[in-house]
Amino acid sequence: MEELDILIEKVPELISNGEISSLRELFSEMNEVDIALLMDEIEAKERLFVFRVLPKDISADVFAYLEPESQEELVRMINDAELERLLDEMFLDDVVDFLEEVPANVVTRVLAHSDAETRKLINRFLKYPEDSAGSLMTIEMVQLHTNFTAAQAIEQIRKTGVDKETVYTCYCTDKHRHLLGSIPLLSLLLCDKDTLVGDIMEDEPQFISVNTLDDREYVADIVSKYDLLSVPVVDNENRLVGIITIDDVVDVIEEEVTEDFEKMAAMAPSDEEYLKTGVFKLARNRIIWLLILMISGTFTGMIIEGYETLLAGFVALTASMPMLMGTGGNAGSQVSTLIIRGLAVGEIEIKDYFKIVLKELRVATVCGLVLGAANIARMFIFSNDSTWPVVLVVSLAMFIAIIVSKLIGCSLPIFAKIVKLDPALMAGPMIATLVDIVTLVIYFALAKAFLI
Amino acid sequence: MEELDILIEKVPELISNGEISSLRELFSEMNEVDIALLMDEIEAKERLFVFRVLPKDISADVFAYLEPESQEELVRMINDAELERLLDEMFLDDVVDFLEEVPANVVTRVLAHSDAETRKLINRFLKYPEDSAGSLMTIEMVQLHTNFTAAQAIEQIRKTGVDKETVYTCYCTDKHRHLLGSIPLLSLLLCDKDTLVGDIMEDEPQFISVNTLDDREYVADIVSKYDLLSVPVVDNENRLVGIITIDDVVDVIEEEVTEDFEKMAAMAPSDEEYLKTGVFKLARNRIIWLLILMISGTFTGMIIEGYETLLAGFVALTASMPMLMGTGGNAGSQVSTLIIRGLAVGEIEIKDYFKIVLKELRVATVCGLVLGAANIARMFIFSNDSTWPVVLVVSLAMFIAIIVSKLIGCSLPIFAKIVKLDPALMAGPMIATLVDIVTLVIYFALAKAFLI
Repeated sequence: MEELDILIEKVPELISNGEISSLRELFSEMNEVDIALLMDEIEAKERLFVFRVLPKDISADVFAYLEPESQEELVRMINDAELERLLDEMFLDDVVDFLEEVPANVVTRVLAHSDAETRKLINRFLKYPEDSAGSLMTIEMVQLHTNFTAAQAIEQIRKTGVDKETVYTCYCTDKHRHLLGSIPLLSLLLCDKDTLVGDIMEDEPQFISVNTLDDREYVADIVSKYDLLSVPVVDNENRLVGIITIDDVVDVIEEEVTEDFEKMAAMAPSDEEYLKTGVFKLARNRIIWLLILMISGTFTGMIIEGYETLLAGFVALTASMPMLMGTGGNAGSQVSTLIIRGLAVGEIEIKDYFKIVLKELRVATVCGLVLGAANIARMFIFSNDSTWPVVLVVSLAMFIAIIVSKLIGCSLPIFAKIVKLDPALMAGPMIATLVDIVTLVIYFALAKAFLI
Repeated sequence: MEELDILIEKVPELISNGEISSLRELFSEMNEVDIALLMDEIEAKERLFVFRVLPKDISADVFAYLEPESQEELVRMINDAELERLLDEMFLDDVVDFLEEVPANVVTRVLAHSDAETRKLINRFLKYPEDSAGSLMTIEMVQLHTNFTAAQAIEQIRKTGVDKETVYTCYCTDKHRHLLGSIPLLSLLLCDKDTLVGDIMEDEPQFISVNTLDDREYVADIVSKYDLLSVPVVDNENRLVGIITIDDVVDVIEEEVTEDFEKMAAMAPSDEEYLKTGVFKLARNRIIWLLILMISGTFTGMIIEGYETLLAGFVALTASMPMLMGTGGNAGSQVSTLIIRGLAVGEIEIKDYFKIVLKELRVATVCGLVLGAANIARMFIFSNDSTWPVVLVVSLAMFIAIIVSKLIGCSLPIFAKIVKLDPALMAGPMIATLVDIVTLVIYFALAKAFLI
């Protein structure tokens, strides 16, 4: 395939020359994802042109991969017949994803051009909480009755399979749509033709399903833990209402990770792409935590003002302050990061807390001794005012600061987990702000004890 | 299923009472993943017992999900016949994963009990670079000749499918094993029985494959971008040598994210679980960066020593130092985190740099104005020594520090990308250390200009 950048130049040229057959040939050789990437980069009018030239069997797929802005523009430009055909071809979860991002008047037009059944479904989907399994699922799954034979099941897949998001795991229900089990397509292929679906399906208790109201992060954990290709979604009466496929789970994992990164860097999480987020929104996401952390900085200020005379007597004390607080903050954010990530992927649980504290005490002792010794060397090499008492106070303060920082760093995320806050909030910036205060208290207490 | 914690109590009891049939019944109702989790938690002798009562058809799967330590202990305890059967049942990629984690004498024993063909394959796999597609792939794929009919293809899947890691995408090759295309099982089911595989396969150029030496992060990007269930791996002559399935890709994504988190918190990345990593290894991973950042702290010390007299005259200047540096550091690490993550998921590219700088200048102005104003209020409320000149110097310094931090925060990750370093290294701790120095220089220059 030619590089996307070249195509972004070439396609508008082909359009203005009216070379439709070259365009058709080009798109027939491209992957849907790449066509969508290309369409996102060109002008709205050209995008409409491309959409109309696309082979009918892939245009709905391509549309699903477009950015919400391009989708919206395109829907505003196509006529009613085209809109109806598009909606007809798209998977329901893709329609819902799209509708969640566009203004109300576009939603209204789309609903007006859906048939009554789809409209009802879409409205139900739009009511699920934003991060729930319900809002993530699709209804295009293969449902088999337990009294089907394998041959009947395969025949049904052959008839209806092309419209399903996956046929590789089929779901077995009774006549009231209660979910009873699942069956991989492979088992249907390998077994005897007359075998009943109910006899070979995987049923409770090994069999895994999620509820429409389950959090999507929980769904992602389940799918990734059990290596599933899809997971069935049931309502409170255990009726099958949809499935979630692994490709959507991969997207969830990436979005959740991005949210964690944002929280850990003291920002309000956002699901918009950086380059597409407005300046004021970006600023708003960041200002809240910057303000909170700045105002907590008042405490460090008060502590310093309290030791005015001490600091005036020993300039090396003031000079070492930033280095000391920085080291404490770094030491603390190292361990808090490990704990937050461990909690997120399930490697660490609340009950491991005492094991972690013991481990961190030992790690901190090793780090503290090495850094304390390095600091002695550093101060004698770089600073002319260094005297043994001052150097020892700084190094001892550093040793204690590292121990305390490591303890704060491993305790706060677990404490957050216990009180049902997101552990990701207890990362670098928050830890550093707390550690700053504790480090200064220790530092000045030591200085007062040994230097005056 | 009963809770894992209860089972960890119950299973050893059943073992010591010799209740083998209850155990068999219990395990027949459990998922392989959960059985492995249970086996990781019990004693080695009990683990061996459980392994021996497991249904033969799932014991290899369960083994593949065990922790490396449990696998190693178990392999040391089972007899040669059991080892041979186990190796025979396992997927090659799981055997290789296991061998990569265990000591040489275990590897030797395993190789001694593999047949010649498998031994050759294992040795080849062990030679692929650790993070390459080659070390991640498996050889258990369905390979179809292009001149097969759909009926022949399905028959071949029926015969050999049960031993394959996935049959849902089959790969089409010529007689020299050159990869020509892929075909979803669904297409084989839906088409006419006499259709030739070669006529309906997806071939170049839409079709996607990776090379054995490609980085596994690249493989993960491809699979996630194109929503694939599996991707074929070829050698330099375009011969099909294996496939990588999405469940392994999900694991790669999670491991790569963990590495990014570790690097961003100034640690050497490690692929071991926190709770299983030794104290000295943890300490070593952390000390290197703590030392580097501490020694760079020397610069802040030197700057402060240079302004000794100025600081002695205005205690509020010293008192505001930590808050000022903290705010600068936080502001910088916010943007560096967004840029690092954007680069990692491909939302941001090097060519976006100037767009980003313009955006950050505007975001920083908004943040700087709000925080500068908040600081004026804060200082008058909390500090008795606050005079207008000092307060204005601190607020102005904060405004400039935020602008500069945002610029440093968005530039360094992109600069790292340009010089082929990992952008994740340019995160919070590194940014904060640099920002500390710049902030102090600005701060003292302003103080000198306006206060003396």
